[in-house]
Amino acid sequence: MRIFQDSSAPNPRRVRIFLAEKQIEIPFEQIDLANQQQLGERFLAINPLGELPVLELDDGSYITETMAICRYFELLHPDPCLFGNSPREQAEVEMWNRRMEFHLLLNVAHCFQHSHPFFAGSKPQSSDYAEISRQRAGEDMVLINTWLTERPFIAGDKFTVADITALCAIDFARVVNIRIPDSSDNLADWHQRVSARPSSSA
Amino acid sequence: MRIFQDSSAPNPRRVRIFLAEKQIEIPFEQIDLANQQQLGERFLAINPLGELPVLELDDGSYITETMAICRYFELLHPDPCLFGNSPREQAEVEMWNRRMEFHLLLNVAHCFQHSHPFFAGSKPQSSDYAEISRQRAGEDMVLINTWLTERPFIAGDKFTVADITALCAIDFARVVNIRIPDSSDNLADWHQRVSARPSSSA
Repeated sequence: MRIFQDSSAPNPRRVRIFLAEKQIEIPFEQIDLANQQQLGERFLAINPLGELPVLELDDGSYITETMAICRYFELLHPDPCLFGNSPREQAEVEMWNRRMEFHLLLNVAHCFQHSHPFFAGSKPQSSDYAEISRQRAGEDMVLINTWLTERPFIAGDKFTVADITALCAIDFARVVNIRIPDSSDNLADWHQRVSARPSSSA
Repeated sequence: MRIFQDSSAPNPRRVRIFLAEKQIEIPFEQIDLANQQQLGERFLAINPLGELPVLELDDGSYITETMAICRYFELLHPDPCLFGNSPREQAEVEMWNRRMEFHLLLNVAHCFQHSHPFFAGSKPQSSDYAEISRQRAGEDMVLINTWLTERPFIAGDKFTVADITALCAIDFARVVNIRIPDSSDNLADWHQRVSARPSSSA
């Protein structure tokens, strides 16, 4: 097995943190986004969508999509549990992780993709939409701050994959100058706690 | 239990088809998107994100997010299996479902949200971005057509949740006049087969 990834992008970081929490070691191979290596012929044969990360299995087949890779390792190495245990808990973790993905992470990623010079020329950009996404990412942070008044972690009492998604989104947001709002103390406190885990530097 | 939903929107339809495939009956309560009932005080107390569908459990708590609701029922009623069995199969279904969600469905939904008079006034819209999303949804269909040369269903040999996601995205795309391209015979054939399942009219 090996994982194709890039050390600067948020989705590969989600997988690295997930594996570090489970103390699983897999060799990584860097696919350099800065040099558009993900759009080269060799990588497009691996993932026609040109996206990272990708897990290569021992039989030479591939699993793409961050959460598909994480879920695969959750099933093979259930401990520590990061997707919830009981059906009810698993549904709740899925709910919170998706709230983090389809709002905060997507808004941050779209702000980046539609405003950053990195994509100019290679992908069509809409500056209007970049600003809409920037605004929404800020609103998402305020809402998450409210949710964190009732719970120490995103999905409740335990650290889960939803915390990993939110952490990677918030740290990546700095690239487009979106920061935790000054008055969002719960979110800032949560961010400090999850950043202090050894996995955060994976 | 009951499910808050709207009969015209693609995400509630994903849950209805999923439940129909499993022959599970749950009472539905209509939250009228056309009248913005999802933004009213009563519904925002249920889901502060103002999104459908929502599952209300017997203890009065809520599970939001389409895939969290489907996964909950998959765990309670595993047969017929719609998320895959073995770890490898589950990872593959997750991968294909997410490819359908984060590309086709998201592009169709964003084209709708950023171009349709329905959202004018209530949500900021970017017409540039609507056109980028429309273009991408068309490209997604061409790519899915290629994938379907090797397999009868989106994730392989069996009907799964990834087919449900793709079906709901393609049918909803008609609202913004995005259609299966003329030359995409595999996709048209697949669409006919999945539309013929009794669940499709749920």
